[in-house]
Amino acid sequence: MIIVLKENTSKEEKDKLIAKMTELGLRVHESEGSRHHLIGLVGDTSVIDREQIKANRSVESLVQVQQPYKLVNRAFHPEDTIIDVNGSTVGGNKIAIMAGPCSVESEEQILTIAKSIKETGATFLRGGAFKPRTSPYSFQGMGVEGLELLKLAKAETGLPIVSEIMSNEYLDRFIEDVDVIQVGARNMQNFELLKELGKTNKPILLKRGLSSTIEELLMSAEYIMAGGNKDVILCERGIRTFENFTRNTLDLSAIPAIKKLSHLPVIVDPSHAAGMWWMVEPLSKAAVAVGADGLMIEVHNSPETAKCDGQQSITPERFKEIVDKLRKIAEIEGKTI
Amino acid sequence: MIIVLKENTSKEEKDKLIAKMTELGLRVHESEGSRHHLIGLVGDTSVIDREQIKANRSVESLVQVQQPYKLVNRAFHPEDTIIDVNGSTVGGNKIAIMAGPCSVESEEQILTIAKSIKETGATFLRGGAFKPRTSPYSFQGMGVEGLELLKLAKAETGLPIVSEIMSNEYLDRFIEDVDVIQVGARNMQNFELLKELGKTNKPILLKRGLSSTIEELLMSAEYIMAGGNKDVILCERGIRTFENFTRNTLDLSAIPAIKKLSHLPVIVDPSHAAGMWWMVEPLSKAAVAVGADGLMIEVHNSPETAKCDGQQSITPERFKEIVDKLRKIAEIEGKTI
Amino acid sequence: MIIVLKENTSKEEKDKLIAKMTELGLRVHESEGSRHHLIGLVGDTSVIDREQIKANRSVESLVQVQQPYKLVNRAFHPEDTIIDVNGSTVGGNKIAIMAGPCSVESEEQILTIAKSIKETGATFLRGGAFKPRTSPYSFQGMGVEGLELLKLAKAETGLPIVSEIMSNEYLDRFIEDVDVIQVGARNMQNFELLKELGKTNKPILLKRGLSSTIEELLMSAEYIMAGGNKDVILCERGIRTFENFTRNTLDLSAIPAIKKLSHLPVIVDPSHAAGMWWMVEPLSKAAVAVGADGLMIEVHNSPETAKCDGQQSITPERFKEIVDKLRKIAEIEGKTI
Amino acid sequence: MIIVLKENTSKEEKDKLIAKMTELGLRVHESEGSRHHLIGLVGDTSVIDREQIKANRSVESLVQVQQPYKLVNRAFHPEDTIIDVNGSTVGGNKIAIMAGPCSVESEEQILTIAKSIKETGATFLRGGAFKPRTSPYSFQGMGVEGLELLKLAKAETGLPIVSEIMSNEYLDRFIEDVDVIQVGARNMQNFELLKELGKTNKPILLKRGLSSTIEELLMSAEYIMAGGNKDVILCERGIRTFENFTRNTLDLSAIPAIKKLSHLPVIVDPSHAAGMWWMVEPLSKAAVAVGADGLMIEVHNSPETAKCDGQQSITPERFKEIVDKLRKIAEIEGKTI
Repeated sequence: MIIVLKENTSKEEKDKLIAKMTELGLRVHESEGSRHHLIGLVGDTSVIDREQIKANRSVESLVQVQQPYKLVNRAFHPEDTIIDVNGSTVGGNKIAIMAGPCSVESEEQILTIAKSIKETGATFLRGGAFKPRTSPYSFQGMGVEGLELLKLAKAETGLPIVSEIMSNEYLDRFIEDVDVIQVGARNMQNFELLKELGKTNKPILLKRGLSSTIEELLMSAEYIMAGGNKDVILCERGIRTFENFTRNTLDLSAIPAIKKLSHLPVIVDPSHAAGMWWMVEPLSKAAVAVGADGLMIEVHNSPETAKCDGQQSITPERFKEIVDKLRKIAEIEGKTI
Repeated sequence: MIIVLKENTSKEEKDKLIAKMTELGLRVHESEGSRHHLIGLVGDTSVIDREQIKANRSVESLVQVQQPYKLVNRAFHPEDTIIDVNGSTVGGNKIAIMAGPCSVESEEQILTIAKSIKETGATFLRGGAFKPRTSPYSFQGMGVEGLELLKLAKAETGLPIVSEIMSNEYLDRFIEDVDVIQVGARNMQNFELLKELGKTNKPILLKRGLSSTIEELLMSAEYIMAGGNKDVILCERGIRTFENFTRNTLDLSAIPAIKKLSHLPVIVDPSHAAGMWWMVEPLSKAAVAVGADGLMIEVHNSPETAKCDGQQSITPERFKEIVDKLRKIAEIEGKTI
Repeated sequence: MIIVLKENTSKEEKDKLIAKMTELGLRVHESEGSRHHLIGLVGDTSVIDREQIKANRSVESLVQVQQPYKLVNRAFHPEDTIIDVNGSTVGGNKIAIMAGPCSVESEEQILTIAKSIKETGATFLRGGAFKPRTSPYSFQGMGVEGLELLKLAKAETGLPIVSEIMSNEYLDRFIEDVDVIQVGARNMQNFELLKELGKTNKPILLKRGLSSTIEELLMSAEYIMAGGNKDVILCERGIRTFENFTRNTLDLSAIPAIKKLSHLPVIVDPSHAAGMWWMVEPLSKAAVAVGADGLMIEVHNSPETAKCDGQQSITPERFKEIVDKLRKIAEIEGKTI
Repeated sequence: MIIVLKENTSKEEKDKLIAKMTELGLRVHESEGSRHHLIGLVGDTSVIDREQIKANRSVESLVQVQQPYKLVNRAFHPEDTIIDVNGSTVGGNKIAIMAGPCSVESEEQILTIAKSIKETGATFLRGGAFKPRTSPYSFQGMGVEGLELLKLAKAETGLPIVSEIMSNEYLDRFIEDVDVIQVGARNMQNFELLKELGKTNKPILLKRGLSSTIEELLMSAEYIMAGGNKDVILCERGIRTFENFTRNTLDLSAIPAIKKLSHLPVIVDPSHAAGMWWMVEPLSKAAVAVGADGLMIEVHNSPETAKCDGQQSITPERFKEIVDKLRKIAEIEGKTI
């Protein structure tokens, strides 16, 4: 970290600041510029509160050289993390395919879909029991009853369950019933939730917030890992930009970026990003080509009557067509589906 | 609401859709364009699930004419809502001044600041006990001990307390100890939290999310009101844009926009928006001039040693200077501080 | 187009507005909502000035049903446009590969690069002679001398030249010397330039502006086509968002979107989007997988000494490796390179 | 400027880089971090091509300490620049009021408006003769005939003329006829235009681009000043964000930011920012309160029949009411209108 001092900072103020840094166990390198005095800090700067330094009125700016995250950082853990969930893996050479409806609606619905996607090659069943909805008047999910139906589908197909948690209240149920606990984009910085999830030993699927930077996503993963839970799967699902043809703008460059910065696996959700079923195919192909470790795709046996997100859901038939094409792209990369 | 059908939609599909709408109790107006067929829906369209209609493969797009919120809507509640908290009001002709430190740090700190801002004319004491921090390694607030210290400061000054809640876990404590419960920007769409807050009778200060539209902010307020709690104060605190000179971009046009769309009071937090203490004065003036019902300003007796957000905190002396200037602008608008 | 009238609009005002619309040759459909009165407009609404209607104080909002562009619209021209430039095509089943340095620097440099990329399979040579630079103190390009060197390279390799024009001043030179005239992102809405280019019969490569919507990009293409020039190639090169790990955020969903909305070919520039050489490979693969008609890649024989954009340029060797991989992805889509 | 080297950079590579920097006349300070080696550069770093350094494969990142602009920089020119245009000033204690129609439509229109705003206290007449329009089918302005009508209005009222130039083609006419040459948001980075304007001695009103950072705005002003023209007026007119209730998001924090970074005067255009006439009053008040040196407001005698931007234009009567209120806010700041 480098502290840039304001012009005309007195020697006294400078020395006070240096003393403070030394107290924190850091070594200091001074450097005199033509207009600005710089103080380089050497040591474990992640212990420093950056805002507290910026609050110093002599400080012009603070330049971060090291990343502020440690446990998720590839620099300290060069090998890819591979997460194994009852035999279905995320990370490594097998591309994870998570598929299923936006929300669980009935036993028949979830069983039909689960069996169909299993046959196509999906490795995880996704389905919402608790749904975050912008309007209080929209369908809010089946709740615990939905979790029960997901368990039936798992019993039938063997597919591990991915489902979204919305608050700590149901954490015990999720630990019991679900194989991968999903944190939705709107809760990516619900730090109380992240802290509790860090204490569990369940794999966590952490979705990037609509307006979160890659660094913030990694910091939220750091929260979970700092609690002791090492199994975090990241998910790019579109960011909010000025473009409104698509619901969100899928940021595929985030995939190679995350691969460089972190050892954690990262998957792509093309369904939520675009918000349009006919974009699922091209965006899925692009996600595999860009290097994603997996995909999360909304599949519904009757999109037009789906209780949520029907406009972005595809049918099991179309899902099969898409997976067949993805398999070929995966092969080029030396991967399998 | 208007449904725009795709070209070449068959009569059969169209009739099916119309039948569905009629079932929902809506009346239907058909209109034949040169290329597109339109179906106008008349009645209470807020009961309709827009996504479900969009999922219909014959639907090109769905045009919303009415706002999707009811209880927060000025159209159904033309008079301004004024919220009275132990004699301190928000809304109406008296501008609410909420001031205090980012986080409570010690008895001496909070008492010193509280007494000073009370004298200057602040009408609420703000102070964080639980702090949402991007890094798990940063100071996370004093917790319940912080709430105790806030109560001491209230006993001393009579100022009602505003403090941020981060999860339902501490809700009972907040109901007991705090006068206005703040929902931070990162939790604006933590719907489980909003639902619980809707069941209380405490005034809620709802901050706009970093990347939330004005409509989404109002929908989150609708969640609270739909639960039965009518006392919601909205707060603009900067949105995330490409500009990075300021921490966020303060969207002051949101104030007249919200005033037009809703009857709820709306205040401005210039400290978090800009992230720089020297911007607090000009942005506070602008906020009063643009029509805000109040301000939330970070004041700290020693910004340089503050445990968080020191770079955006101002001293009690500077706070006094600013309030004196704001008073004059308020007068022009026929308001007082 | 649908006009939504404000509540309480008088019959007189409404009739006045309808009369005005009828005068413009449009037919009118009225529709009475529960709170809002709607006026549907049937006919060629592209002749209407939307802003002028919105200026009417009785108008609540104006809903666009048809796209505001005609000549670029796939609805009126269902077949893909294929542009043939001396035998090198853009559009159709052969993926166009435009490669070359950010800026022409010397005869040796451009000849070396041109020969090398030709061998690898590039179908166009790109090279900047006039460079738009944020700072007036940066290298501004070799100017007309650069065009001369590009012609030498074309004579040597047969590759058609793509180069950026920055103002009408040099238009005659560009028509003479260049095969595809590029309009840079910053000039996408330089309408005076677009109008002049519309009068030429040179293919135009139109880059999307940093903060331009897909619709605005298509409207700028409409400017060129409205002038009589039918050969427009669109280019996605990243948009400006809050994320700053990458220089811009490559919006790959724009490719299927544009393919749906327009018949014009669209290519991707991964070099400018990411601003980092190591992202060129994954983003190029993703671009081909998502359906782009071509790529524009910065190649430099010595990136570290390049006069501009060296950090995003790749070497000819690396370019070869990438193209070999792209070829396989193209095959899956039934295309060739 | 500070160069951060990658881990494991060899001594040889480091020495090569240092030699290169020394050649450019810079002094070098080395500093060894725990993982990263830093090279501080002392001297006039504005001569350095940042991209060329970043292109070096051993460079992890480049940290800018000094601003990249010189002539517009307040650090080198501490006093506020005040621009005098035939007695009407911009900058200093008198707030400049530029008013008039979006576009000149007829002699009667422009004379009526000019006389009316003059009476109210406007100090400049704005009016468009050449109009940048998103659609090629929209009204494009009266062209040179419009300039003639503006001159008539000036002869009648004495108000200096502000009008937008769209290309170098008409530069001579603008120098002859117009008092302040406006560069629109879409042309803020039309560098060929900026270079030519830098050679004139006309005051330039430079509008911030829709997606331009404050630094980029200042760099474009630097282009003009680097050419020799010292009279540049900056204008904030809203930036593009995800919020779409307003046409653009007025960034009022840009005003104190620019005041800190530069000595140039900066005004605000609330009409274009919001795109709604009823927002002009609150945003104008906020602009004066936040410290703007002036306002640019669209006034039309018949907004409903205006050929462009009628929805954001106010009537002369309303303009008078607003100016009367602004005068009181200006007084608080020790300024006059």
